[in-house]
Amino acid sequence: MKLQIALDLMTSAEVMEIADRIHDIIDIIEIGTPLILREGLSTVTKLKTRYPDILVLADTKIVDGGKYEAADAFEAGADIVTVLAVSADETIGEVVQTAQKYHRETMADLICVQDIPQRALHLQGLGVDYLCVHTAVDVQDTGKTPYADLAELVSVLTSAKAAVAGGVNIDAVPALRETNPAIVVAGSSLTKAPDLRAAVIEMSKAIK
Amino acid sequence: MKLQIALDLMTSAEVMEIADRIHDIIDIIEIGTPLILREGLSTVTKLKTRYPDILVLADTKIVDGGKYEAADAFEAGADIVTVLAVSADETIGEVVQTAQKYHRETMADLICVQDIPQRALHLQGLGVDYLCVHTAVDVQDTGKTPYADLAELVSVLTSAKAAVAGGVNIDAVPALRETNPAIVVAGSSLTKAPDLRAAVIEMSKAIK
Repeated sequence: MKLQIALDLMTSAEVMEIADRIHDIIDIIEIGTPLILREGLSTVTKLKTRYPDILVLADTKIVDGGKYEAADAFEAGADIVTVLAVSADETIGEVVQTAQKYHRETMADLICVQDIPQRALHLQGLGVDYLCVHTAVDVQDTGKTPYADLAELVSVLTSAKAAVAGGVNIDAVPALRETNPAIVVAGSSLTKAPDLRAAVIEMSKAIK
Repeated sequence: MKLQIALDLMTSAEVMEIADRIHDIIDIIEIGTPLILREGLSTVTKLKTRYPDILVLADTKIVDGGKYEAADAFEAGADIVTVLAVSADETIGEVVQTAQKYHRETMADLICVQDIPQRALHLQGLGVDYLCVHTAVDVQDTGKTPYADLAELVSVLTSAKAAVAGGVNIDAVPALRETNPAIVVAGSSLTKAPDLRAAVIEMSKAIK
């Protein structure tokens, strides 16, 4: 399992400070949607310029204009872009083709999808690299977690890889070990820890 | 019917040039998703600073983090923000509450919604101001238009207002006159016209 840290409710400058502290121990840095909406894709470029070897995911959540939006993110330096799994197949196809052209990867976010196994299998067939189960932050307060969805997802995927996001923290390690997704996304459980670097090391060790 | 011009596949500087040419004849200027992803919300601020009286819609397509993302867009100066109609009710609620706090408005984009009348009625109940039927640009090549969906939408709404987007041009005027949505969104049919100002005037007159 790779550890992806989601960075969103902060400025581009704060992202760079965090990267300075953990660039040698983190697998993937996610530039989150709120930060992209506020400041655009420039943080992706800054990050790849300073740390070319870090994998950067741009959480663009594309739902239309697949070719243009994916190309913009890849041009900015993203290694992985996200597309909403609810999008039209035409949009998914445009994002996948654009990723292949740039030799980069796509992650489909299954947020708001009703029938996760069915849609995930379909998107695997369309060539998506990662399928991510994702409990919306707005829904986490209801106590919902993504682990039942993750188990279902993992049971159907053959070639595409699984990812999980939405309130993930160290308590999830048993559920993660059972399902073994390719990517584990953690946000505030790391960024709000008293010692960020120690929290990243602890989570990384726990899932490896 | 109000005319909204969608500006996306261009730079912030180009948006300002277009605004200089049509600010006195356009009802709403939309800062489109691709432009927000590339450059962030700064174009919204520039536009409202130069033309405080123009209504500006930020096509944020929020699907999570409703409170934070809507607040960022309103703080940047947006009069209307968009949320995806497929989002969790919790997210829609956060966006609506945030809009009310800022005395601004919300538009839910019905892109990728299967049962439009049912979901539109539900979102009307949650307090969304505008419901927008929207044929994805990636789907327009299949020949699909949003007018059948628009007729269905208009037939169910009582308090919320209807909007329509996705390949709208002057040929749509008969369908628009029949359904009478509150907002008509046009993009490339205006921005790619030989004379932008003349095209805006022609479309405005045709729908008023």
